[in-house]
Amino acid sequence: MSFSKRVLVLLPAETRHKALLQQSAPECRFLYSTYRDVTREQVQDAQIIIGNPPADYVKNSPNLEWLHCHSAGVDSFLKEDVLPKGTALTNSTGAYGLAVSEHLLGMLLEIIKRLHTYRDAQKLHLWQGQGKVKSIYQSTVLVIGLGDIGGEFARKVKALGAYVIGLRRTCAEKPDYVDEIHLAADLDSLLPRADIVAICLPATKETNRLFSRERLALLKEGAVLLNASRGTLIDTEALCDALESGHLFGAGLDVTDPEPLPKDHRLWEIPSAVVTPHISGLYHLPETLERVVRIAAENLRLYANGEPLNNYVDFTTGYRKKK
Amino acid sequence: MSFSKRVLVLLPAETRHKALLQQSAPECRFLYSTYRDVTREQVQDAQIIIGNPPADYVKNSPNLEWLHCHSAGVDSFLKEDVLPKGTALTNSTGAYGLAVSEHLLGMLLEIIKRLHTYRDAQKLHLWQGQGKVKSIYQSTVLVIGLGDIGGEFARKVKALGAYVIGLRRTCAEKPDYVDEIHLAADLDSLLPRADIVAICLPATKETNRLFSRERLALLKEGAVLLNASRGTLIDTEALCDALESGHLFGAGLDVTDPEPLPKDHRLWEIPSAVVTPHISGLYHLPETLERVVRIAAENLRLYANGEPLNNYVDFTTGYRKKK
Repeated sequence: MSFSKRVLVLLPAETRHKALLQQSAPECRFLYSTYRDVTREQVQDAQIIIGNPPADYVKNSPNLEWLHCHSAGVDSFLKEDVLPKGTALTNSTGAYGLAVSEHLLGMLLEIIKRLHTYRDAQKLHLWQGQGKVKSIYQSTVLVIGLGDIGGEFARKVKALGAYVIGLRRTCAEKPDYVDEIHLAADLDSLLPRADIVAICLPATKETNRLFSRERLALLKEGAVLLNASRGTLIDTEALCDALESGHLFGAGLDVTDPEPLPKDHRLWEIPSAVVTPHISGLYHLPETLERVVRIAAENLRLYANGEPLNNYVDFTTGYRKKK
Repeated sequence: MSFSKRVLVLLPAETRHKALLQQSAPECRFLYSTYRDVTREQVQDAQIIIGNPPADYVKNSPNLEWLHCHSAGVDSFLKEDVLPKGTALTNSTGAYGLAVSEHLLGMLLEIIKRLHTYRDAQKLHLWQGQGKVKSIYQSTVLVIGLGDIGGEFARKVKALGAYVIGLRRTCAEKPDYVDEIHLAADLDSLLPRADIVAICLPATKETNRLFSRERLALLKEGAVLLNASRGTLIDTEALCDALESGHLFGAGLDVTDPEPLPKDHRLWEIPSAVVTPHISGLYHLPETLERVVRIAAENLRLYANGEPLNNYVDFTTGYRKKK
């Protein structure tokens, strides 16, 4: 019954985090490093990796059995020939709902209350109204993807009095935190109804450029678009046009395409665009790291005991598998 | 049973609003104007005023029976010798809870998610993390004043997972949207417990400079202070010091003292201060005007029918009277 593996941990683990992980599989040998410092050799030697190594370091690893990503998005490991055949892949769904949904809510309020332009005015010492604002209360919010992040965001805006429409890939009963539930196929008919649209989908082949120029045109005049998924889900140039023309009231983007956004990209300067540098899911919120470690430790315990893992990612869809 | 009065309305009333007011008291004569355009003569001639005239115009009015303010705060009419003796004074409590509480929530998230510094970075085309953030979830929020605005704000942060402590002037049962209720006398013992403090009190003699240098020092290291009341409730210089020293994580101020904030005031430049120019309760949110008109129309109907008015302000306390 001995379970002795070489586990590489790429997390900013503090002593109590290390203790938690080691308790889950006491006979394993743990090596702690970081994305920046870890070597190809260390990655190739590991049987289990917790955290996200540089994708090209894992290629053709002779030892890797299981990669547990610290992230919710695992798109860089879904590409062909990155993970050795048969490698188990799990993610940290459940760790990011809090941090990302609060960040999304903050960007949303920043846009609809014009707090970004009030900030600009403050820098100029300008005591001056910036015009009409909108409310979350009684607005219609379309949440695309009801996973950890989308579900948490839907709960929040519903609690603040919005009418919430949820969109899911697969058939499911309506959760109590949305007012309507629809399938992905209904997207185009729902877009014109929404005052606020939040994209909370994983990046897969199917979701690439989901928000094409044509789909952006379906959004209601004066709508607000939020993206907490991946920048590649939106046609950036078409979005810039929709913002500059005034078709959209604003966009809150924690992710962009390309990323990082180049210094001279037009998006930086669009007054109604609020851009943050893909940080809502980092460890800037201490609770996020706590959750990542708890999820990893539990999965390690399951793996050591030969039990089915949580948060298995289905390679064909890029979505989490139902356990 | 005829009720024929001269009613001066100082609201940006559209046709449907005028119809609503006139339905409430069909025999009255209505004059519509604005704060800027109204003359002293028109104010002195009115028997009923709906909206806020320049305070010195109402002094010694021989005709004024009732002033219904469009605002929640009525401090400028509470000063001695402003209103003729015996004038009834009512306010528009109930109209501002939505707009101001959403604005407060936006400023709070802007501060704790560092969206203001991300905005500054965006202006510089800088793709760069700005450091640790905080969450509303599991934070302790002290809401001082549970009127329309404080109550709405308390509901919102509670729905977002905060532990909410409410502070009231008078004894009352705990509403279900707070976790604890306390009386004003407990303020000093509660300040060190709160991660977030929201001031939602009317401006009265008692609340003037409530947040003195000594009280600001009682706040927890790293706390966030929000003010949606009046700037005069806080010692501005002491607040600037508490922000600059890093004792406070940030402050969200829709009101300042003095107001407007002078061009060369140090508060403008403090990185952790978010200042908006007393706009959260204006008609920037269209729903606010709808509510103001509904409240006024209902009160006018009550007045015309000789029934007790809603939202009577007690001159001695500056608070709303229980009906």
